[in-house]
Amino acid sequence: MIGHGFMGAAHSQGWRVAPRFFDLPLRPEMAVVVGRNAQAAAEAAEKWGWSESATDWREVIGRDDIDIVDIVTPGDTHAEIAITALEAGKHVLCEKPLANTVAEARAMTDAAAAASARGARAMVGFTYRRVPAVTLMRELIAAGKVGRVQQVRAAYRQDWLVDPAVPLAWRLQKEHAGSGALGDIGAHIIDMTQFVTGLAVDSVSGVLDTIVRQRPLLGSGSGLSGTAAEGFGEVTVDDAAVFTGRLSNGALASFEATRFATGRKNALTVEVSGDRGALAFDLEDLNTLRFYDRTAPDELQGFTRILVTEPQHPYVSAWWPAGHMLGYEHGFSHQVVDFVTAIHDGTQPEPSFADGLRVQRVLEAVERSSDAVSVWTPVGG
Amino acid sequence: MIGHGFMGAAHSQGWRVAPRFFDLPLRPEMAVVVGRNAQAAAEAAEKWGWSESATDWREVIGRDDIDIVDIVTPGDTHAEIAITALEAGKHVLCEKPLANTVAEARAMTDAAAAASARGARAMVGFTYRRVPAVTLMRELIAAGKVGRVQQVRAAYRQDWLVDPAVPLAWRLQKEHAGSGALGDIGAHIIDMTQFVTGLAVDSVSGVLDTIVRQRPLLGSGSGLSGTAAEGFGEVTVDDAAVFTGRLSNGALASFEATRFATGRKNALTVEVSGDRGALAFDLEDLNTLRFYDRTAPDELQGFTRILVTEPQHPYVSAWWPAGHMLGYEHGFSHQVVDFVTAIHDGTQPEPSFADGLRVQRVLEAVERSSDAVSVWTPVGG
Amino acid sequence: MIGHGFMGAAHSQGWRVAPRFFDLPLRPEMAVVVGRNAQAAAEAAEKWGWSESATDWREVIGRDDIDIVDIVTPGDTHAEIAITALEAGKHVLCEKPLANTVAEARAMTDAAAAASARGARAMVGFTYRRVPAVTLMRELIAAGKVGRVQQVRAAYRQDWLVDPAVPLAWRLQKEHAGSGALGDIGAHIIDMTQFVTGLAVDSVSGVLDTIVRQRPLLGSGSGLSGTAAEGFGEVTVDDAAVFTGRLSNGALASFEATRFATGRKNALTVEVSGDRGALAFDLEDLNTLRFYDRTAPDELQGFTRILVTEPQHPYVSAWWPAGHMLGYEHGFSHQVVDFVTAIHDGTQPEPSFADGLRVQRVLEAVERSSDAVSVWTPVGG
Amino acid sequence: MIGHGFMGAAHSQGWRVAPRFFDLPLRPEMAVVVGRNAQAAAEAAEKWGWSESATDWREVIGRDDIDIVDIVTPGDTHAEIAITALEAGKHVLCEKPLANTVAEARAMTDAAAAASARGARAMVGFTYRRVPAVTLMRELIAAGKVGRVQQVRAAYRQDWLVDPAVPLAWRLQKEHAGSGALGDIGAHIIDMTQFVTGLAVDSVSGVLDTIVRQRPLLGSGSGLSGTAAEGFGEVTVDDAAVFTGRLSNGALASFEATRFATGRKNALTVEVSGDRGALAFDLEDLNTLRFYDRTAPDELQGFTRILVTEPQHPYVSAWWPAGHMLGYEHGFSHQVVDFVTAIHDGTQPEPSFADGLRVQRVLEAVERSSDAVSVWTPVGG
Repeated sequence: MIGHGFMGAAHSQGWRVAPRFFDLPLRPEMAVVVGRNAQAAAEAAEKWGWSESATDWREVIGRDDIDIVDIVTPGDTHAEIAITALEAGKHVLCEKPLANTVAEARAMTDAAAAASARGARAMVGFTYRRVPAVTLMRELIAAGKVGRVQQVRAAYRQDWLVDPAVPLAWRLQKEHAGSGALGDIGAHIIDMTQFVTGLAVDSVSGVLDTIVRQRPLLGSGSGLSGTAAEGFGEVTVDDAAVFTGRLSNGALASFEATRFATGRKNALTVEVSGDRGALAFDLEDLNTLRFYDRTAPDELQGFTRILVTEPQHPYVSAWWPAGHMLGYEHGFSHQVVDFVTAIHDGTQPEPSFADGLRVQRVLEAVERSSDAVSVWTPVGG
Repeated sequence: MIGHGFMGAAHSQGWRVAPRFFDLPLRPEMAVVVGRNAQAAAEAAEKWGWSESATDWREVIGRDDIDIVDIVTPGDTHAEIAITALEAGKHVLCEKPLANTVAEARAMTDAAAAASARGARAMVGFTYRRVPAVTLMRELIAAGKVGRVQQVRAAYRQDWLVDPAVPLAWRLQKEHAGSGALGDIGAHIIDMTQFVTGLAVDSVSGVLDTIVRQRPLLGSGSGLSGTAAEGFGEVTVDDAAVFTGRLSNGALASFEATRFATGRKNALTVEVSGDRGALAFDLEDLNTLRFYDRTAPDELQGFTRILVTEPQHPYVSAWWPAGHMLGYEHGFSHQVVDFVTAIHDGTQPEPSFADGLRVQRVLEAVERSSDAVSVWTPVGG
Repeated sequence: MIGHGFMGAAHSQGWRVAPRFFDLPLRPEMAVVVGRNAQAAAEAAEKWGWSESATDWREVIGRDDIDIVDIVTPGDTHAEIAITALEAGKHVLCEKPLANTVAEARAMTDAAAAASARGARAMVGFTYRRVPAVTLMRELIAAGKVGRVQQVRAAYRQDWLVDPAVPLAWRLQKEHAGSGALGDIGAHIIDMTQFVTGLAVDSVSGVLDTIVRQRPLLGSGSGLSGTAAEGFGEVTVDDAAVFTGRLSNGALASFEATRFATGRKNALTVEVSGDRGALAFDLEDLNTLRFYDRTAPDELQGFTRILVTEPQHPYVSAWWPAGHMLGYEHGFSHQVVDFVTAIHDGTQPEPSFADGLRVQRVLEAVERSSDAVSVWTPVGG
Repeated sequence: MIGHGFMGAAHSQGWRVAPRFFDLPLRPEMAVVVGRNAQAAAEAAEKWGWSESATDWREVIGRDDIDIVDIVTPGDTHAEIAITALEAGKHVLCEKPLANTVAEARAMTDAAAAASARGARAMVGFTYRRVPAVTLMRELIAAGKVGRVQQVRAAYRQDWLVDPAVPLAWRLQKEHAGSGALGDIGAHIIDMTQFVTGLAVDSVSGVLDTIVRQRPLLGSGSGLSGTAAEGFGEVTVDDAAVFTGRLSNGALASFEATRFATGRKNALTVEVSGDRGALAFDLEDLNTLRFYDRTAPDELQGFTRILVTEPQHPYVSAWWPAGHMLGYEHGFSHQVVDFVTAIHDGTQPEPSFADGLRVQRVLEAVERSSDAVSVWTPVGG
């Protein structure tokens, strides 16, 4: 595993727990954590249960006893590491976003295609696809339960930037983060929309907004938990992105990604309206899925709140009895299950790097539209 | 209309509005308001749109141009007025509870039976039966949608007595009110349980509780809006009643009536569990009904939130388009519709005085059980 | 009252009921219903409780005993009737939208300004402003409870056009209706956004979409309840409108108006996010308002579901005790109260025709943006 | 760990995960799984990550390298194992219910008291106390946020027995299970009520009900997933228990434990009403807590839905960022944290065996009341 921040914790939990609840065809071993700082990497290995730590990712990738490279570093480093690993014949799991630019994402996708021919698998970590309610949503749409998709609305709302005292961390600087709310959380709703509907976002019109334009410089500490120093600096990424997309079947989809939705903590919501029904998901209530069936008797129609904790539901039978809630991190175990199974079976795991590239292209089109007074802009590729 | 308090306002609204939205077979005229205080009665007639006012209810009942007597006085006066009116050949609508004692309720029921033979109709005002979602609930249960009823839970929760400064109004004194939470709001959940299930409460075990035993004496003003005087007096009715009933098919039903459920304002809830499904209603969300269908495909089961505002739903087509909410007072219009229709058709309106008596008998059995360390007590009659 | 369709029923209920629950400074009399068809007008007068009916609105406006003209006809007739009435010195209540075009709306606003100098009042019927929870929302924002407004999201979602068998009624033809979802329900969310925030929508970017482009021709009957004939015709208005607005303080607001949100019946929702809190309203749960207070202790923060049925809340004390629900039509009574009070006091009632014009200008800007590949478009005026 | 069923999986997950997210003062090692069947025990050890397996629990308890005994066997075996372990100087974590009888529970409590003097700790596994929202509920009540507790309502509703085809597993036979819904899930709501309020249940009145009295005999397989054989047998435990308790401060608490609440899967709900506020919890929405503050301004009062995922909330800061949901199993990690910390610190972990005994005494009083036509029955001890 290259990197060991918040995502490192989540991935480690996935690797540790998945083999206990699922019958995996291969038994993964948690070998090495790589980080720039030797001491921090050693501490992370100890804390999260990896056998060793190292500081040189190239060296680790070069080792024969390493089969899988799990990349949880910031987005600007993904391309170099992933391509190196794929060329070395390793299977690669790369955290989202696939890269900070379309060019990088394309290079990675090419590398994945080449590696695939040699038997190496590449997968990008849109873990929310593996929340059971989201997987069920896709299955129900594929089975025709909402009929023809006619409208989609998707939003990812957080509020951690409402406080103007939050300092100017690297995530708020374009040179490091590439993008703000759009790239970080907007990527999730684009991927989820495409995943659950089976449709592509073909063109977009949108606007990016930076609501608090100056923030205190970062003092001691790092990241979001850092403390403020004296002086102010410019926020150079978007705080919120509002955009509309045209799907490949002609339907409109509306999107909002924001870190300024006061009171909304991690509110990823998707609602798909079709001519036979509708489905709605909310990540703040992740064990449920709401389904409206237009084919039900008139007097009984309404949104059914399905508690997605039954053994019939995706992934659930491996866990607890009906009615016992799953949490945020279970998706990371499901990701391990599907990735390891694909490696064993020699099949392409999903979401592929090509899926990640497609999301990147939509993000880039939104930025171009925003720069051009929101004109409709085709998604490249 | 005899009486003109809060219930007088609600009944007046029913008489005024029902003929506008529904095609009634008879056109009722709002003739006389009767009250002890001549000025107050005159003001009430003016405010609520009645042609005249009077102070002597016997005289008004004696008038030939009066066909219907609507009784909205306190419970201890119901029997005398209703029996007099029925004996005079008038149709009688009597607000709940039918009476303060079983003996009175029985006499009223006997009078209603005798009057019925002479063509006079009698009905008791359990208006909540006519909330469309409640009527729908009964229809669905009657149609077998929940299968065999196996458990019922019903509660009516308010919180207006939590404040210890609320003064000792007549409603908190046994000699005037007869009963506290049990008789006032407990009556509703007993009636609603029997109505929606079609089953009778045959025996009960329960306990009454007075949580704040002393309150400031009532100063100026009256009723619940009165102000406190110096000194304290004893609360002699129950603040809360918790009881369990055995229904006529053997199922258990649990009940709670309380004025001490902090934060619950008018939360009448009923949930019926059967072997094929369940239905749940909440008066604080009165335009909806929740239905669980055990016969649906396993992966789609869940509580469906039916918005009971479709033209297919009871009473709704007379009002607004789908999705437009009804409120508390619409039930009073529905009551007028059903009462007037029964008068016209010569049929027995429901709930009958016999239904009111049955509720009274359950209330009395709960009191007896509470007095006898909660032993199971058969409902008389 | 000119016109007597669905809105005529709602306005009649307002005129009939308001004086019963509120102490009005003037006592309105329900005089004449005007309709093109004499028999239908006579029936409407009888059904909704007006003394007379007539077919010539000019004649009725010319009568000396008529003080108030209430216009509930389709939008394309508003301008002529309202201007005539204002010039005749009548007070005018005009149902929304103020007009079908900006030009008409401007002429009406000019007429209202001129009439105002002569003591005649003009008001437009955005009744949802008078849902108690909406009025409370405005008051709380004005009192600083959400702080600086930083984002708004507003949507009005219905689903009555999802069924492709719904015939081609006049509402779906541009020459009669002027606009589709945008003008009909989009107008509400624009007005409500401006009302609750006290901010104007200054520019917009958006897209209109017609999802079902051909529908069966209308056979017998009229309006939405008509039956289909043979043959198909073109739908020439929008089924859905998705747009973004820039408010006068710089904040972004996102909007959606749709008749294709499967399962959503009358779901007008508005959420305002500020730097001190947030407020959220949903018309399908109209007795509640959700408030998030960022100034509360950290561990207690969350959305508070306020049941807006307490005597302290706007309009509520005139109705029922706490916890008793109001419905759709109560706003029409509140409208009468405020209109009659303004007439009596000689003050300008709100929303004024100028408010209606402002909404019309936003609608027109959305249409222009949609026609111009969604480029940002300033709101005229 | 003695035993390795469903609870064994949950406890194993707690032991495995807790040290990764929390800084424990001691580092537990997962040593031995004990089960009667050698092969099954070996498989469980392999699956759940224990170093060894064994079949003789006495032998394992006798080992010097074993410090902690975790008991997850059926209730009828708890007493013997726990007492043996405590006498051997081991720390003991015993799954709830503490025992099947009061006598056993008392003997265990005595053994725990004796062992405590020698430094061995004993704890019973009411894990739901450690759902962060529940711990927060207790803290808020202790801090006076609801004021004086005046009413409590607690329910645990499941529906897995509604299907009459569910076979007659050991859980439905009194000789093996001791009790039905009462002992299994009723125990939870008694403990939780006492835990969050800090009050004891002093006396009770209640009734047990067996709704489906005959079930198919169990064929192949075991437990709840077994298949039916030919023939029917008698259900000898309760399917539902409805009871009322008097708390040590005089307040009434109502309880329901049922396996027949159609549509409710794991709905443990507790609501505490006090004179300053109220708190409500629902295990099917376990990341939230609802708080009503009677001291808030009148027009802003309502239930606040607190998302208990902030770093300020109990246990949460060790996990994920705000808004990221926890699931059922996280309580088992929290249990490990608190147990290991108490062992290290030499303090008494909670809930103690005495707490478990107190729950057992309440259960026994409910059974006695049910046998005696529901008369009020004091809780022994």
